[in-house]
Amino acid sequence: MDVPLICYDCGATATLAAGARCDCGEPYWVATDSECFAWPEGGKRSLWRYRDLLPDVDPTGLAAGAGGTPFVRAPRLDGDVGARVHVKFEGSNPTGTFKDRGSAVGVAAAADAGYGTVGTVSHGNMARSMAAHAASAGLDCLVLVPADVPAERLALLARYDPTILRVEGDYGGLYDESLRVGREQRIAFVNSDTPLRVAGQKTTALEIAEGFAPEPPDAVVLPVSSGGHGSAVWKAFRELRDAGLATELPRLYFVQTAACAPIADAWERGDRTVTPIEGGETVAYSIANADPPSGNRVLAAARATGGGVLAVDDEAILDARRTLSADAGLFVESASATALAGARRLAEGDALEGDSDVVLIATGTGFTERDVDAPAVDAARVELGALDDAVSERMG
Amino acid sequence: MDVPLICYDCGATATLAAGARCDCGEPYWVATDSECFAWPEGGKRSLWRYRDLLPDVDPTGLAAGAGGTPFVRAPRLDGDVGARVHVKFEGSNPTGTFKDRGSAVGVAAAADAGYGTVGTVSHGNMARSMAAHAASAGLDCLVLVPADVPAERLALLARYDPTILRVEGDYGGLYDESLRVGREQRIAFVNSDTPLRVAGQKTTALEIAEGFAPEPPDAVVLPVSSGGHGSAVWKAFRELRDAGLATELPRLYFVQTAACAPIADAWERGDRTVTPIEGGETVAYSIANADPPSGNRVLAAARATGGGVLAVDDEAILDARRTLSADAGLFVESASATALAGARRLAEGDALEGDSDVVLIATGTGFTERDVDAPAVDAARVELGALDDAVSERMG
Ligand SMILES: [Zn+2]
Ligand SMILES: [Zn+2]
Repeated sequence: MDVPLICYDCGATATLAAGARCDCGEPYWVATDSECFAWPEGGKRSLWRYRDLLPDVDPTGLAAGAGGTPFVRAPRLDGDVGARVHVKFEGSNPTGTFKDRGSAVGVAAAADAGYGTVGTVSHGNMARSMAAHAASAGLDCLVLVPADVPAERLALLARYDPTILRVEGDYGGLYDESLRVGREQRIAFVNSDTPLRVAGQKTTALEIAEGFAPEPPDAVVLPVSSGGHGSAVWKAFRELRDAGLATELPRLYFVQTAACAPIADAWERGDRTVTPIEGGETVAYSIANADPPSGNRVLAAARATGGGVLAVDDEAILDARRTLSADAGLFVESASATALAGARRLAEGDALEGDSDVVLIATGTGFTERDVDAPAVDAARVELGALDDAVSERMG
Repeated sequence: MDVPLICYDCGATATLAAGARCDCGEPYWVATDSECFAWPEGGKRSLWRYRDLLPDVDPTGLAAGAGGTPFVRAPRLDGDVGARVHVKFEGSNPTGTFKDRGSAVGVAAAADAGYGTVGTVSHGNMARSMAAHAASAGLDCLVLVPADVPAERLALLARYDPTILRVEGDYGGLYDESLRVGREQRIAFVNSDTPLRVAGQKTTALEIAEGFAPEPPDAVVLPVSSGGHGSAVWKAFRELRDAGLATELPRLYFVQTAACAPIADAWERGDRTVTPIEGGETVAYSIANADPPSGNRVLAAARATGGGVLAVDDEAILDARRTLSADAGLFVESASATALAGARRLAEGDALEGDSDVVLIATGTGFTERDVDAPAVDAARVELGALDDAVSERMG
């Protein structure tokens, strides 16, 4: 399988064998001919519903089950946001996060190309996702994590039986080093903004758009870390415009955690490139990327769509997380709650209007961090014989 | 909305207002006219794809996102089971378990009928599911739990903000008492084998069957507790047979945990009714039902389909759970792993054949009990500068 690539910035083209990044420094996209795309008929429930827009590979095992996640109205959040709120719940992917979309495409492509091993640089959701997809496909999986990650943070990952290496040294540099080692040792690395991953991630937005067809929603709000997902969402809507399925692109709003917000900082300054920072501690640790490899691509997406990039603090994030479970029935990862926290901020600034549709992308389940901010349990004791009175007193 | 009911055993008919249980003592099903059913066209990803076979209500909020879960091949398990293995992964439902299907239909019907409050008797997956669906729909939710459940077991449930009552006394008796109190105080209780719940649960099997169309698989293996899910699966295949979409029903195998296996005990003795027992401790606590309200219905399903009921011990359950994550990429609840443990037992007894398709229903995600049987983490430390050698040594 040969995967054509294109640079969104300078327009350079290449193929996957050339690597993940253009000579201009920006990351490639898989190039797609979407002009003749139309919404498919039939009942496919996974991201493979859109295979005309995906690399030409056959999914096997778990890959066939990625995507096709719930997309629900959350009317009780409308007041918070000052618009009609819809939530795309990516926690329903097989390993509990949106990462499965990219892993599915990446691992399927690796298997198709005859690789025996896949790899990734991650100590969180992406690592777990890659390990699971590799396990299902019968491929080995190499996961590179920072040396200082506590062992208990890797316990969930170990369930899927990958080879884990703790790497001492500059973790930012490891991202590019891993791609080099992968090329040299024939290991298919699918990192957070590599083309096959972004090709898979794109399907989140395709599902959102199909839910709104014929025209996309007014705005989409999502967490941003490396920028891979953000760029994927932008790409998807561009393809739909090219296909004649979207007159205007939705405004894309990207939300970071205030403790580590290099893209939001750049946006605030009006910069076109992101400057790496020293990040701090945050409950939304899974999006705390101090040197985001697709940060510039996200700035471009925000500019091109009339959206923006913003940052929210831990208090706002935890409050949004509580609201999502208590008022929408969706228990999400702290990082995912930044979408609602960000939408609330936008509402304060009049960026959203009452007669508009806003989509929050909830990127992952809360069950993987269920101990964070655990609520007190209020549960009165009653005798079975006194049930009638106890119920009418409380519910009547 | 008026929901017609029918008793599978004596054929008596009624409507929902009459209660959940027939005068003969057996629980009702929602009556369905499926003769003219055909597979739908189009792209619905949820259980509402099958709305011609469901109560005539409109889902709102989270209800629209239930079902439509991944259905994947797990070729690395074929050797274990002596057949082609497929897994229906119910952990991808919004609250992480199959319970969302029944809650979606139950809560949507309650909202449609003008109820302000829904209720359930559960301290686990079903409680969490009902509370989430109620939260999304803007209904109050009453959850009745046994008095001796530790508060920390309720922390996840409390995220969705229901009213929780700990009830002292006979928990088995509480099941029927709750239905009575619900009728008297206008609270829509959706317990584990009540008709609307079973109507929703049925869609698991419809999705499996559609995945195999034109003919269903040879066998389906699933955990059984109250028997509500088991009866739902049986009902679904019967409806498909009536619709001309299944010549033969798959053999249905129901698996219990050995520490609490009243239905398997009855099957072993050749009984047609289940005798309540004193259950013991087990890792699969969420299916440890000592007095299952649909136990007899499950025995009937096993007889009618040429299947069976069996029990597996904790060691076999945990071993199956490890295999599902390491060899299929699916991290499941201990209770769900009974399906694979049961299929392994069937393989020993020659109940499965190599040229057949066996479906395991994995009822819930493992993330809600991630600390159970946590693996040791093996992760060597390497310097970034020594990465090439470290990788080639381990992966070469
Ligand atoms: Zn370029
Ligand atoms: Zn009857």
